[in-house]
Amino acid sequence: MMETLREKAAPEQVGKGRVEALSDGVFAIVVTLLVLEIKVPHVEAHGSIAELAGALLALAPKFVSWVISFVTVCVIWVNHHRLFALMSRIDNGLFWRNANLLLWTSFIPFPTALMGDYPGNRLAVSFYGLVMFLMALAFVLIRWHMLRHRDLMVPQADEAAFHAGTRFSILMGPAAYALGALLAWVSAPAAFVCYAAIAAYFVLPHASRQTPNPSERGRD
Amino acid sequence: MMETLREKAAPEQVGKGRVEALSDGVFAIVVTLLVLEIKVPHVEAHGSIAELAGALLALAPKFVSWVISFVTVCVIWVNHHRLFALMSRIDNGLFWRNANLLLWTSFIPFPTALMGDYPGNRLAVSFYGLVMFLMALAFVLIRWHMLRHRDLMVPQADEAAFHAGTRFSILMGPAAYALGALLAWVSAPAAFVCYAAIAAYFVLPHASRQTPNPSERGRD
Amino acid sequence: MMETLREKAAPEQVGKGRVEALSDGVFAIVVTLLVLEIKVPHVEAHGSIAELAGALLALAPKFVSWVISFVTVCVIWVNHHRLFALMSRIDNGLFWRNANLLLWTSFIPFPTALMGDYPGNRLAVSFYGLVMFLMALAFVLIRWHMLRHRDLMVPQADEAAFHAGTRFSILMGPAAYALGALLAWVSAPAAFVCYAAIAAYFVLPHASRQTPNPSERGRD
Amino acid sequence: MMETLREKAAPEQVGKGRVEALSDGVFAIVVTLLVLEIKVPHVEAHGSIAELAGALLALAPKFVSWVISFVTVCVIWVNHHRLFALMSRIDNGLFWRNANLLLWTSFIPFPTALMGDYPGNRLAVSFYGLVMFLMALAFVLIRWHMLRHRDLMVPQADEAAFHAGTRFSILMGPAAYALGALLAWVSAPAAFVCYAAIAAYFVLPHASRQTPNPSERGRD
Repeated sequence: MMETLREKAAPEQVGKGRVEALSDGVFAIVVTLLVLEIKVPHVEAHGSIAELAGALLALAPKFVSWVISFVTVCVIWVNHHRLFALMSRIDNGLFWRNANLLLWTSFIPFPTALMGDYPGNRLAVSFYGLVMFLMALAFVLIRWHMLRHRDLMVPQADEAAFHAGTRFSILMGPAAYALGALLAWVSAPAAFVCYAAIAAYFVLPHASRQTPNPSERGRD
Repeated sequence: MMETLREKAAPEQVGKGRVEALSDGVFAIVVTLLVLEIKVPHVEAHGSIAELAGALLALAPKFVSWVISFVTVCVIWVNHHRLFALMSRIDNGLFWRNANLLLWTSFIPFPTALMGDYPGNRLAVSFYGLVMFLMALAFVLIRWHMLRHRDLMVPQADEAAFHAGTRFSILMGPAAYALGALLAWVSAPAAFVCYAAIAAYFVLPHASRQTPNPSERGRD
Repeated sequence: MMETLREKAAPEQVGKGRVEALSDGVFAIVVTLLVLEIKVPHVEAHGSIAELAGALLALAPKFVSWVISFVTVCVIWVNHHRLFALMSRIDNGLFWRNANLLLWTSFIPFPTALMGDYPGNRLAVSFYGLVMFLMALAFVLIRWHMLRHRDLMVPQADEAAFHAGTRFSILMGPAAYALGALLAWVSAPAAFVCYAAIAAYFVLPHASRQTPNPSERGRD
Repeated sequence: MMETLREKAAPEQVGKGRVEALSDGVFAIVVTLLVLEIKVPHVEAHGSIAELAGALLALAPKFVSWVISFVTVCVIWVNHHRLFALMSRIDNGLFWRNANLLLWTSFIPFPTALMGDYPGNRLAVSFYGLVMFLMALAFVLIRWHMLRHRDLMVPQADEAAFHAGTRFSILMGPAAYALGALLAWVSAPAAFVCYAAIAAYFVLPHASRQTPNPSERGRD
């Protein structure tokens, strides 16, 4: 009974393209919303250059947090696309693991604003690392699901390389952010540098043809 | 006269793809905006870990509301796509019934923030259920319109299954949320659990091939 | 010299599809942002149902403004698509006249919030009509540009019908909103009704096949 | 080893279309968010027309800033598309130079609100020019990268015209905004006019077929 309808509407038939479009939409919105957390400072003497300059300088931690988060969301975007290029289709488990990634990604404006408002508070700086840890873990959970369900991968995908890439994505993902979150309790600036370094690692060009598995590099 | 122009611009010719793209845009924006309602707490002693920890813990109901709403919008997205897969085209009635769904979906950040700010206030928790009831009802109104206008469905759609699915979507949609909204007047936490359970129901994998009408399961 | 490059990058070659996608993005975002202007009310006694009920009731004008604007943006979306279906390509003049439409459309959250905050203030209610007048005028300016440049229309477009439609779009567009904006100075509630009626006119189904120029009906 | 996977997932294979879609998303969101920085004024006597009129008039600098920024983002959008039409593919360097452009574009709501709040403060007005300078510089950095990597350009692109266009884009981009930012220290209104003039230059129609390199005109 109703075989045709079932075919059409089965949850796993949501379509990879649409899930990618939804994810892209979330990434584009998050990256643009980040700046809304930087409020225009209130200055009593409207014309005072010194007062406004001081107020803008006081926003410096917010600007730094914003740039780190902006670059991080761009890295998420790149890694997301690289990972989706290896998927043949989306099943229910993949859809919700991807939704989990979107949940933590859409949450980024909050820890970014928190760290920007309390750059010297170790909890605030550690909290940022914790959210990024959960976001990076979401990538690993997607990878593990794909490894358990080989049919969700495109046929030409190299499984050994994907395994190696998954190990690497744990290292440069959850592990690196866990380190940053712990580092915050020793030194908040050191954690800032750690978060920036993780993002920078993915921005810098790599000798992609010489490294053993360039296409798999990173947290994707 | 002007038959060709009429063909091009008739309201029902808006195009299913475009309406779907508009809806997807709204879903992606709503899901990302939800977090904007969680404001960074204000703490007097900027460096105080205890004070910030307390302030973050006080936000717990906002985090819970946010996660429930995030998952619910993802469920709306899935059900919307499954329902649109059964549509052959959009007429004026379908366009405005879909706009009604988008209205209530775009409203979700408000009841989410309200419930997060007043988690112990029964009216606030019941109000959340009421908005979700209206959103779920919007799905049922779309389905009833399709049942009255069989030509809006793809030819291969199984009408008996669609009827069964519509009955099911009333149960797990408006009926479930009405129950939650009423439950709030007895116990706010119980209503929270009810809203979370409705969302969780759609996330959990179902033995989709064994159940009588898997493709029709849910509020879509 | 550089004929091929010129071909690729000439301003009028921006592409109708991309301008439509940009416009759709703006419409989807505006329609979703509208609700952000409805702030969760502040209530001293967190658990007081009576106090929260009073606060929510006090928001009634904001809810009404929001629904009127939501429906109006949906109408803009429909009319925009119907108008774009008659365009063969975008030239510089059309691009900037469309940008003018997007400018006023993206402005809608401000007059909506203003009217919602000051529903009894005639200036606030009239201001809403003024912005809608400018938005509706933007549609007319696009139409006039198309009438002056017949090559921007698809060949099968019926020019007489387009003329009639343009006359109609002046009546149910700028003229109707100018009336509403003036009416506000006599009675704010009457202007509310006028704005709602204009939106409702476009929602209600019309006997599209019997009317003389159905495809041209409306403010598009 | 893993040649096929490498092919699929190499960073430079992100796809021009997707980067363009991400950029379009950011542009559409920025252009729509701009208005959120214009807050509904607070007026004590809710019904007082005079008081509200005064409050709205006091917002005039915010309206002017908003219109300038709105038009500027539209110009960015046009120039971005014209530049992308000359690209054959995206490499890592191009991706991050484009991300740099998106960073400064997504930042625009902040200097717009700052200039709108402190229209008489020379630092605020100069700061706006500085951000626009960095945004316009981002376009030049993309162009220089393309000039260094000729294979990133479509084969039919005229290199001499592209060189001329790059020189022009420096003049009407970073150079013009640097001038505006400096001018602000002499006269804030003059800088306002300068920013508006730069945007207006790109809006006004040009005799595109008579000028030496029309397709290359501007800051793209």
